[in-house]
Amino acid sequence: MLSDLKRIAEQVDKALTRDDFPETILPDYLKEAVLAYPLRGGKRLRPAIAMWACGLFSNKPDSALLPACAIEIFHTWTLVHDDIIDNDSTRRGELSSHEDLKQISQKRFATQAEASEQFGRSFAILTGDLQQAWAISLLLKASGKDMSSDITLSILDRMINLLYPRLLSGEAIDVEFEHRKLEDISEDEILTMLKWKTGELLQFAAETGALIGLNTANYRLDSVKSIGEFAMDAGLAFQLQDDILGVYAEEEEWGKPVGNDIRTRKVTLLIKKALEMSEGEDLQHLMNCLGNVDMSLADLERTRNIIKDCGALSAIEEMAKECIEKAKDSLSQLPDNKYRKLLDELADFLIQRKY
Amino acid sequence: MLSDLKRIAEQVDKALTRDDFPETILPDYLKEAVLAYPLRGGKRLRPAIAMWACGLFSNKPDSALLPACAIEIFHTWTLVHDDIIDNDSTRRGELSSHEDLKQISQKRFATQAEASEQFGRSFAILTGDLQQAWAISLLLKASGKDMSSDITLSILDRMINLLYPRLLSGEAIDVEFEHRKLEDISEDEILTMLKWKTGELLQFAAETGALIGLNTANYRLDSVKSIGEFAMDAGLAFQLQDDILGVYAEEEEWGKPVGNDIRTRKVTLLIKKALEMSEGEDLQHLMNCLGNVDMSLADLERTRNIIKDCGALSAIEEMAKECIEKAKDSLSQLPDNKYRKLLDELADFLIQRKY
Repeated sequence: MLSDLKRIAEQVDKALTRDDFPETILPDYLKEAVLAYPLRGGKRLRPAIAMWACGLFSNKPDSALLPACAIEIFHTWTLVHDDIIDNDSTRRGELSSHEDLKQISQKRFATQAEASEQFGRSFAILTGDLQQAWAISLLLKASGKDMSSDITLSILDRMINLLYPRLLSGEAIDVEFEHRKLEDISEDEILTMLKWKTGELLQFAAETGALIGLNTANYRLDSVKSIGEFAMDAGLAFQLQDDILGVYAEEEEWGKPVGNDIRTRKVTLLIKKALEMSEGEDLQHLMNCLGNVDMSLADLERTRNIIKDCGALSAIEEMAKECIEKAKDSLSQLPDNKYRKLLDELADFLIQRKY
Repeated sequence: MLSDLKRIAEQVDKALTRDDFPETILPDYLKEAVLAYPLRGGKRLRPAIAMWACGLFSNKPDSALLPACAIEIFHTWTLVHDDIIDNDSTRRGELSSHEDLKQISQKRFATQAEASEQFGRSFAILTGDLQQAWAISLLLKASGKDMSSDITLSILDRMINLLYPRLLSGEAIDVEFEHRKLEDISEDEILTMLKWKTGELLQFAAETGALIGLNTANYRLDSVKSIGEFAMDAGLAFQLQDDILGVYAEEEEWGKPVGNDIRTRKVTLLIKKALEMSEGEDLQHLMNCLGNVDMSLADLERTRNIIKDCGALSAIEEMAKECIEKAKDSLSQLPDNKYRKLLDELADFLIQRKY
C-alpha cells in the first residue's frame, strides 16, 4: 500500500507542477506562495482516497487524477488560512505562508515589525483565495474529459453547498473552543467539529472518486454513500489517533513539543473524556497543566498516567477501533478488488501511524 | 435610470435574503457576518450591469438575476478580505467585518486586546471564504434554469481562470504599492492595477449577462467582447473619478477625511501625474504632504491648486472622458433598446457622481 501511496504522490506532484493556473499570478512572490505548500509534498492521503475510490468502481483510478489534485489544493488553501488563524509559523518543517511572506516583505521592502506581520497575513489571505480558485480550475479541467458536465456540476454543487459550509463551520467552532470553558463544551460538539473540519473533505474525496468511477452524478446511490461513510469514519479514527499522539507521542517522531495538546489546552475528545473520568487531586493536576506551556516533564508524565488510569485513553482507543471497524464494514459492501484492498490497508495505516 | 437601478437593488436584496446558502453556517455570529455586507445594501452596480447586459440581448434581464447576485456576493467577499488587508474599521458607514467580529469576541468571550484582534481577523477570513462559496452557489442555482450547463461551466471557467487571478493580482499589486517608492511605480502599472482590481469584475458582470441573454457559452463573440469592453472602460472612468474625489471631494459628501488620498499617500494616476507634471517648490510641497495624516487644510488647499495648475487634474479628467467615450462607442455597436439606454446612462452616472 505504501508504495502505491507513493506513486499517487508522484502523479499528483507532476500534475500540479505542470498545471498552468498559477502562471499569470503577479507579483512573482505571490505566485510562489500559491505554489509553495502544494509543491512541499506530503502524503497525499486525500488524492489517494479519491483515486482509489474511482479505481474501486472502474479499475481506472487515473480518471480521478485531476479532481484528486483539486481536492489536494482545496486542502492546501484551508491550511494556508488556518495557519494565519492559528498564528502558526511553520508547516511541514518549513515556514508557513504568512511567515514566509512576512520575511519576503522585510527583505524586499524593508518593512518593520507590525507592517511586516500585516503584509505577511495579507498576502497569505490572497494566497489561500487564489488556491480556492486553483482547486476549482483543476476540477473544471477534468470536465468533458474524465467526466461529463453533469458530473462536474454535481461535484461542484457538493463542494460548494455542503463541503464549504461544513468545513468552515467546523474550523470556526474549533477556533471558538479556545475561548470557551472546557466544561461548557460537550463531547457531541467536539465530535461534530472533528467530522466537519476534517471528515467532510475525506468523505468528499471518496464520493468524488466514486462518482467518476461509476460515471454518475447521483450522490444518493448506496455505493457512493458507503464509500463516503468509509472515508468519514476512517478520518474520525485518524483524528482520535491524533488526540492520543498529542499527549503520548515523543518529540522526535511527532515534530511538536511533547504533550503539545496539554500545553496548548487543545480541545480534544481525549482531554474532555479525561476531565470527565478523573477526580480529586488528579482532576486538579490535569486542570493545572492544561494551557501551561512551561509544564515540566514530571508533570507531563503524571498527566499521561492520570489520562491512562482514569480510563480515558482506552475509551478513545476503543472509539478509534470502532470507527475503523465501521469504516471497514462500509467498505466490505463494495466490489472486491485491488483498490478496495488498498483502501482497507489505508484505514489500518491511519490508526497505526506513530507520527 | 436611477429608478431602474433602485428596482434592481430591491430584486437583489430580496433574492439574497431568500437564499438558503447561509442557513447551515455555525456559529450564529459567523452566519450573521456572512450576511452582513450583502444585506447592507449599496448601489448594486455590478448586478445592474449584468442584468441590463442580459436584457440588451434578450429583453429578459431577470434571467440574469441569480448570476447577478453571484457577482454581487463575489464583490462582497473581496471587500471583506480587503478590509482586513487594509485594516479598515468601517464599511458603508458601519463596522467592517473583522472589526464587528472583534467586538463580538469581546462581548461573548471577554477576549482582550491582541486576542480579540486575532479573533476578528480569523472569523472575517472565514466570512470571506464562505462568501466565495456563496457566490458560486448562486451561479449553480441558475444552472439548468436560466442557463444551460454549458453556459454555467463557461461562466465558471471565466470566473476561476481569468477573474480570480487578475482581480487578486490587482489587489496584491495595490498592496505592494504602499511599500514602494512612488517614483518607481509607472503609470502603466497603476493602470494595470486599476483594470485588474476593479475593471475585470465589471467586465465579467457584463459578459455574464451577455452570455445568458444570447444563450451562448462563447466568450469570443463580438457582441460579448463589446459589452465587456464597455464595462471595463466605464469602470476605468469610474476609478479615475474616484482619484479626483479622493483629492477634491468635501468631507460631508465623500464620507472620508478631505484629501484622503493625499493623507494616506494612495497610489493613484492623478497623484502620479501631479508628481510628474509639477516641479520646484510645488513638487516639494506635494511630496511633503503625501502620507501626512495631519496635513492642515491650508496645505491641502495648496496641494489641490498645485495638482490643478500643473495640468494633472485636467489630464485625468480628459482620460476619464476618453474612457467614457470609448465605452459608449463599444455600446453603440450593440442592439438599440431600453437596456442599451440604461447602460449608456449608467456610464454617465459613474463619472458625474460627486460621492
